[in-house]
Amino acid sequence: MKSQRYTDGLKKLHEIDGEAGQKVIESLQSIAPDLAKYTIEFPFGDIYQRDGLTLQQRELVTVAALTALGHSQPQLRVHTHGALNVGCKPEEIVETVIQLAVYAGFPAALNAMFTVKDVFIERGIITVE
Amino acid sequence: MKSQRYTDGLKKLHEIDGEAGQKVIESLQSIAPDLAKYTIEFPFGDIYQRDGLTLQQRELVTVAALTALGHSQPQLRVHTHGALNVGCKPEEIVETVIQLAVYAGFPAALNAMFTVKDVFIERGIITVE
Amino acid sequence: MKSQRYTDGLKKLHEIDGEAGQKVIESLQSIAPDLAKYTIEFPFGDIYQRDGLTLQQRELVTVAALTALGHSQPQLRVHTHGALNVGCKPEEIVETVIQLAVYAGFPAALNAMFTVKDVFIERGIITVE
Amino acid sequence: MKSQRYTDGLKKLHEIDGEAGQKVIESLQSIAPDLAKYTIEFPFGDIYQRDGLTLQQRELVTVAALTALGHSQPQLRVHTHGALNVGCKPEEIVETVIQLAVYAGFPAALNAMFTVKDVFIERGIITVE
Amino acid sequence: MKSQRYTDGLKKLHEIDGEAGQKVIESLQSIAPDLAKYTIEFPFGDIYQRDGLTLQQRELVTVAALTALGHSQPQLRVHTHGALNVGCKPEEIVETVIQLAVYAGFPAALNAMFTVKDVFIERGIITVE
Amino acid sequence: MKSQRYTDGLKKLHEIDGEAGQKVIESLQSIAPDLAKYTIEFPFGDIYQRDGLTLQQRELVTVAALTALGHSQPQLRVHTHGALNVGCKPEEIVETVIQLAVYAGFPAALNAMFTVKDVFIERGIITVE
Repeated sequence: MKSQRYTDGLKKLHEIDGEAGQKVIESLQSIAPDLAKYTIEFPFGDIYQRDGLTLQQRELVTVAALTALGHSQPQLRVHTHGALNVGCKPEEIVETVIQLAVYAGFPAALNAMFTVKDVFIERGIITVE
Repeated sequence: MKSQRYTDGLKKLHEIDGEAGQKVIESLQSIAPDLAKYTIEFPFGDIYQRDGLTLQQRELVTVAALTALGHSQPQLRVHTHGALNVGCKPEEIVETVIQLAVYAGFPAALNAMFTVKDVFIERGIITVE
Repeated sequence: MKSQRYTDGLKKLHEIDGEAGQKVIESLQSIAPDLAKYTIEFPFGDIYQRDGLTLQQRELVTVAALTALGHSQPQLRVHTHGALNVGCKPEEIVETVIQLAVYAGFPAALNAMFTVKDVFIERGIITVE
Repeated sequence: MKSQRYTDGLKKLHEIDGEAGQKVIESLQSIAPDLAKYTIEFPFGDIYQRDGLTLQQRELVTVAALTALGHSQPQLRVHTHGALNVGCKPEEIVETVIQLAVYAGFPAALNAMFTVKDVFIERGIITVE
Repeated sequence: MKSQRYTDGLKKLHEIDGEAGQKVIESLQSIAPDLAKYTIEFPFGDIYQRDGLTLQQRELVTVAALTALGHSQPQLRVHTHGALNVGCKPEEIVETVIQLAVYAGFPAALNAMFTVKDVFIERGIITVE
Repeated sequence: MKSQRYTDGLKKLHEIDGEAGQKVIESLQSIAPDLAKYTIEFPFGDIYQRDGLTLQQRELVTVAALTALGHSQPQLRVHTHGALNVGCKPEEIVETVIQLAVYAGFPAALNAMFTVKDVFIERGIITVE
């Protein structure tokens, strides 16, 4: 039996990350289904349910965190989609990454920007060169 | 002669970080005045001048980045002040740090929260226990 | 009303981290009581309840993680206590930190060792020089 | 002439990392044979020779460290093999990575889990989906 | 109209990073041309213009920084080229990375060495195995 | 009986880090004398003995690495002394840290600069404000 947090979390995961989030969850089933469960319950069932920040704010804050961490390009890809899915403007995502050049350095910002660029091309926001 | 970027940057630094920003600049004078100059010109004269994100958004994104980096408590202190100075609600700062528990782990979030708490006590937003 | 995860987590937190864990929880009350709640529910109510690793293994693994992160000395202090509380031998903690010199570099290992040393002195495992 | 540390280290490297360790050593020969020598002598000739932790404990601690670092997926792959080679149970490796979600965040844990999954598929511990 | 910093920076970028630097700048045009502009103006128009360190020193220091960061292999590739372009000896680059095993750990040093190796093969400094 | 690497390493440690290095070694004796031994043997008995980089180059590279890591202020303090002890000019150390603002971000560079400043004041290179 699924907890309320799980049910709420799964709904929120779909709202924010769409198919990409679902794929992460599925790809965990054969190795660590409980990590999938925690991913749904804690981030999406607890944190993303909270007031205090809009979903757009949460996604920009997440883009910033993932850019700073540097080693989280797959999650940055998912959350660039997520940011767009919840209504962030492409310009806001780009500006967030530019802002990070100051705090995490140019390499972190450049690598993040190329991940964002891939997502923007995939969604037709910019055209392939 | 100071560049326009310097003049604009210094004004923006004062608007955002107030006295705390000024102190950082001053404490660099005896060792690396040019690093002070670059800090004014690039982050504050270039980046914080930009459209695309409001100052409140820039500060929340910065709080997220500094929380994720983990080793930047002095800057997190300055930018917690900065976030409040430009109109972020205390709740938004707290929520940003809670959000980071998901992406950077609980230790990074807890250490950041205690820095935020110090600033909130200093400003009378919460009372000392 | 507290969830079962909260009740179980609080008990586990006390078992592992003792007074130090309780102090972290208390010091969050004025700023972010919900972060305290999540700290009890997710790490201690979910993860530390799991089979698959003994508590001793979980604590050594945590000491390794906090040593590698580098910016988490307060948590390393708490979990050095925690490791000893659940029955890890002092030697195992020391060896874990030495092992980290290989993977995270000597500065991370040295800084961690000095935190471990403080806890060992506090508990009378080694004597102050 | 090889030192005793080198001879002991090479034997230990083969015991732990098998072919994967040997490949790393070989691929360094054309660029930095001395880094290969140090890798054999210091980690494997000094540290992995020590008492105080079993080889299983050392490998779990290493999996935790590499998960926390985030940027070390090739080494995590080698040491997932290593952990299994010295007798860690698959479940212990999975649990170690789940534990890291608390300390290093979900992205670090998820990326590590997918590396572990690749190794488990390669060794037939789980089946390809 | 381009600033003097831009013109000077672009010239310095070409001197140091050659074609690889130019490609980074071009690949930013469709997504964030201003980040390209800042990359030229601040690192190359301000910092690399400075006295106090030779260009060779600046490049070795950069190789060290990128090795320590761990998540910046694309930039390490560009700056391995850069180091060679401004006259660093291959041996100096290799030694810098070996030195980093001490400070950032063996995984960071090994991953960096394999990136350096790729560049050395590309430039015919060492031959493909 | 001490190995040749130990004897050579201890001499090199004294040459580079002087009293500060000795103090680190001593403070490890009660908790992990073997970590002290490895610190002498591997970094100072192996790596700092190598040709290919001058001691000045090794120290600047180390200052860069420690600045990028962010969590290693005690080691940065020791190696700022070390850099000066082996003949680096104060200006070279300052420039190295300024260079790092580009690659590791302004917070890492600022925190490192304040550590360098402390050492410069201690040694009378700059005067207390």
